[in-house]
Amino acid sequence: MEEQTLPDQVTPEVRARVQDSFDRQGLMRHLGARITHIAPGRVHITLPRRTELSQQHGYIHAGATSAIADSAGGYAAFTLFPENSTVLTVEYKINLLAPAAGEGIEAVGTVLRSGRTLTVCQLQVFSQEEGQKTLIATGQQTLICLESRPDQ
Amino acid sequence: MEEQTLPDQVTPEVRARVQDSFDRQGLMRHLGARITHIAPGRVHITLPRRTELSQQHGYIHAGATSAIADSAGGYAAFTLFPENSTVLTVEYKINLLAPAAGEGIEAVGTVLRSGRTLTVCQLQVFSQEEGQKTLIATGQQTLICLESRPDQ
Amino acid sequence: MEEQTLPDQVTPEVRARVQDSFDRQGLMRHLGARITHIAPGRVHITLPRRTELSQQHGYIHAGATSAIADSAGGYAAFTLFPENSTVLTVEYKINLLAPAAGEGIEAVGTVLRSGRTLTVCQLQVFSQEEGQKTLIATGQQTLICLESRPDQ
Amino acid sequence: MEEQTLPDQVTPEVRARVQDSFDRQGLMRHLGARITHIAPGRVHITLPRRTELSQQHGYIHAGATSAIADSAGGYAAFTLFPENSTVLTVEYKINLLAPAAGEGIEAVGTVLRSGRTLTVCQLQVFSQEEGQKTLIATGQQTLICLESRPDQ
Repeated sequence: MEEQTLPDQVTPEVRARVQDSFDRQGLMRHLGARITHIAPGRVHITLPRRTELSQQHGYIHAGATSAIADSAGGYAAFTLFPENSTVLTVEYKINLLAPAAGEGIEAVGTVLRSGRTLTVCQLQVFSQEEGQKTLIATGQQTLICLESRPDQ
Repeated sequence: MEEQTLPDQVTPEVRARVQDSFDRQGLMRHLGARITHIAPGRVHITLPRRTELSQQHGYIHAGATSAIADSAGGYAAFTLFPENSTVLTVEYKINLLAPAAGEGIEAVGTVLRSGRTLTVCQLQVFSQEEGQKTLIATGQQTLICLESRPDQ
Repeated sequence: MEEQTLPDQVTPEVRARVQDSFDRQGLMRHLGARITHIAPGRVHITLPRRTELSQQHGYIHAGATSAIADSAGGYAAFTLFPENSTVLTVEYKINLLAPAAGEGIEAVGTVLRSGRTLTVCQLQVFSQEEGQKTLIATGQQTLICLESRPDQ
Repeated sequence: MEEQTLPDQVTPEVRARVQDSFDRQGLMRHLGARITHIAPGRVHITLPRRTELSQQHGYIHAGATSAIADSAGGYAAFTLFPENSTVLTVEYKINLLAPAAGEGIEAVGTVLRSGRTLTVCQLQVFSQEEGQKTLIATGQQTLICLESRPDQ
C-alpha cells in the first residue's frame, strides 16, 4: 500500500470471510496449502514440498508456485473489499527466479493499489530451507471486485 | 511459429522425450492432467473438472488453469529443443477471461518464436461444455533452453 | 475476437471518434505515428524509423514500439465501446522478439475479449523491410471502459 | 537485490558506460528524459511533462511512461553487467495505476535478481506534483546480457 495507512489487524469478520472462502477452494486443500497470515492488504500462504507437487526435476512445479501466489494476492485484495463482494483474478504475470528446492514455499500477496473496481497486488514466493528464505518467484496481479451473488 | 515452416509431426524420439518428462511431473498426475497432442512447436494438455481443482465458487481454480497452460507452453518449446537439453519457464503472464465452468479444460501451448536461448510461446486455455469450446484464458510465456545435467 | 461475429467496417462515427482521440495524443504526433487501419476490434498504427526513435544500437527503441502497440490496442478496444465512454490501459505485457531494423514498424491491436468493463487485446508489432514483414514484438493488454467526463 | 550486498556506488567506468549508452538513445533525448541517479542495480530517469508527450486527456502517455521505465530497468541491469556486454529487454509488464498528472515523472529501475544470462528488474514510476510523489505505474522486466559486438 503506497502512501496509505492501513490498520495493523483485520477484524474477526474479515478474517472469517477470507478463511471461509479459502476453505471452499478445493485446489488449495488438494495441494496441501494453508493460510498462515492475514493482515489488511497482505496474506501469506504456505505449501510444504511433496512428490505430488513436483515438476520433472523434483522441485515444486511452477504451476503450484503460481497457484498459491495467485490465491495469496486474491485474498490480500479481498481483505480490503466491502462485505457482499467477491474477488476474481483478471490477470497476473510471474517471473520464476530459482528452483523451489527447500522444505516448502511461502507466497506473500501484498496490495500495491486498491481501487473501487480494480486492485493491483505484488506477489512474492519464498522457499524455506534450513531456516533460510530465498525469493524464488516475483509477480504482479490485477484483480476485480464484483458484487457477490446471494448463492456464493 | 511466424514465417517458419515446421514439419507436421514430431519424431518418435521427441514424442518419447516429451511424454517421459511429463510423466515425471508429479503435479500433472496429481491434478489429473494428460497430454493429448504433441506436434512440432505445439502441445495440448487436458484436465477434467473435479472438486479437487475448484476455487471458491466451484469453477476450476486459476492456479490449475495456469499450471497446465505453463506445462503446455513448456513442452511446446521442448519439442524444438536439441537433445540433452532441458526447459525452464522464465516467466509468463495470463489473462483469465471467463470461468472454467464446463466438463474440463484444454490448454494449448504454441511456439511464437524459437531462439537458441529463449523461446516465446502463446498460451490458450479453452473450456469444453456440451461440445462447445470457449476461450477462458490467454497468455504469453518466455522459456529458456539449458543443457541438461546427466542426472536429469 | 473469439467466436463472435463483428461487422466488417466501423461506422463513420466510430472512425471519427477514434481518429479525433488519436489526434489529441501529442506523443503519437511527436513520434511520427499514424493510424493506417480502423476495423471493429482491430486498429493498425505505423511508425517510420528515424534517429529520434533509436535505442543505443540504432534500432527503434522498445519504448516507441510499446507506445504504438499500446495505442493500437487501446483504439481497437475503443471501436467497440459505447458513445460517451473513454478507454484507459490497465496493464500490458510485451515480449520483444527481434530488433526493429527495417524502414518502419506497424503495430496491430486486436480485441480478444470485449466485456462491459474490461477488454483484453492482443498486440503485435511487425517490422517492414524491403516488402517483408517480420514479427518483432508480441503482447497482451487489459483495458477498462469508463464513462467519459463532459470535458473530454 | 534480495539478500545480496551491493556496493553503494558505481565505479566511474560503469557510470560512463551507462551514460554513454543512454546518450546514444535518440528516443530518450527526443522525449526529454535524462538519467538522474546511477547506483549498482538501480537507475532513475526523469521526464518533465509537456504537450509532446500527452495522451488524449493531456496526461503523459502510457507509452512515454513505459519507455523511461524500460530504460531505467535496462540500465539498472547494465550497471551489474561485465565489460564488453550489452543489454536487451526480453519482455516487461506494466500496470498503470494513476494518470501522470503532475509536473513530471520519475522512473526507478531496480534489479531484483541478477543472473549470468537473465536479469529481473522491478520498475516503478512516480509522478511529482508540488513536492509530493505518487506511484503511477509498477512493472516487472526481464533482460538478457549479450556479448557486445566490436562496433557497438
